[in-house]
Amino acid sequence: MSRTTCPKILYLPIGVIRSGHTVPDQTPAQSVYAKGCSGRAELLAEYEEGLEGLDGFSHLILIYHFHRAQTPQMTVTPFLHESPHGLFSTRFPSRPNPIGLSIVELTRRDGTILFLDGVDVLDGTPLLDIKPYVRRFDCFVDTRDGWQDEVDEETAQRRGLRRYRSAQGTIRGKTS
Amino acid sequence: MSRTTCPKILYLPIGVIRSGHTVPDQTPAQSVYAKGCSGRAELLAEYEEGLEGLDGFSHLILIYHFHRAQTPQMTVTPFLHESPHGLFSTRFPSRPNPIGLSIVELTRRDGTILFLDGVDVLDGTPLLDIKPYVRRFDCFVDTRDGWQDEVDEETAQRRGLRRYRSAQGTIRGKTS
Repeated sequence: MSRTTCPKILYLPIGVIRSGHTVPDQTPAQSVYAKGCSGRAELLAEYEEGLEGLDGFSHLILIYHFHRAQTPQMTVTPFLHESPHGLFSTRFPSRPNPIGLSIVELTRRDGTILFLDGVDVLDGTPLLDIKPYVRRFDCFVDTRDGWQDEVDEETAQRRGLRRYRSAQGTIRGKTS
Repeated sequence: MSRTTCPKILYLPIGVIRSGHTVPDQTPAQSVYAKGCSGRAELLAEYEEGLEGLDGFSHLILIYHFHRAQTPQMTVTPFLHESPHGLFSTRFPSRPNPIGLSIVELTRRDGTILFLDGVDVLDGTPLLDIKPYVRRFDCFVDTRDGWQDEVDEETAQRRGLRRYRSAQGTIRGKTS
C-alpha cells in the first residue's frame, strides 16, 4: 500500500474531555499516574441513549484526538525513560494519527456527562469514542513489556507524574 | 458543544491489517477468542524507524478503522449477550466513529511487517495506530464489568468465537 492510495478517514468528536490539566508538560503521562485527577467526558445530547448500561462498568477506555500534538518524529525519548525509542514502541502523543487512549475510572453518570477519575488528558480534548474496559478482553498479566521492563516502579511513578505534582506544590524532591 | 461547531478530524492509514477473516459474522468478537488466528500488520515504509524496539513487547494495541461498519444504532444487542445495551457499553463495530481496538500478540517483526497472533480483525482493515501494551498502564484486575459480569465464561467463549469455529468445521454443538 502506498500513501497515495490510502483512503482518508474522517471523524467527528462525540464530545469533549474536561479536566484540570491545561499545560501539556504538567499533565500526567498515564492514567495510573493521575489518581485523584478528576474530570468529565461531556457527550453530545444525541448520544445519551448509547450510554445506557455504561454505569455498570468501573473503568472506561477513552479514545480521543491529541489536539495539541506536533509533527511526529519516528524516534522519541519517552516521558518514562532517558533513552530514545521507536515512536510506536511508546505512547508519545505526537503520532502520524494522534489518537490517544486512556483507561479511566467512571465514578458517576448524569445524562451525557460522565464523571471520571484518573484523568491524564488535557482540558478541551476532542473525544472520539468510549468503550467499556472489560477485564476478560483487556487485562493481560503475563506480558513482556520491552524497554518499559527496564523502568523500575519508583522511576515510572516519579516520571509519570511529569510536572503535575510540582505544579500542585505537593511533591518533594526531584520531579523531572 | 454542538455538532455544528465540531472540528473535523482527518486520519490516514499507517498500513493495513492482513488476516484470514473475510466474513464479518465468521470473525471472532475479540482477540481472546481468536487464539491461533494469525495475521500481519503491514505498515508503510516511512514508518520502519518508528517500529524500533517494538519487538521487545509481547502484546500490541492495534487501533484501526472498522471499514465495514454500518450506520450506528444507539441501542444494540452485543455478540456476547442476548439483551440490548447502550452502544457505548459495548464493543460493537458500528459506532459514531468506527474505531476498533484489539490487543494482539506480536510474534515477530520483519521490517515494517508485524506478525501477529490472536487477530480478530477483518482482512484489509486500515490501520491507524499501534501502541505497546504496557501491563502497568493497561492491566486492571479489580474492575466491575457491568453486563459483561452476567455472561459466564463458557457462554462468552462460545459466542465470542462467533461463526469462526463452525466456519473452520472444528466446533461441535451450538455456536451462535
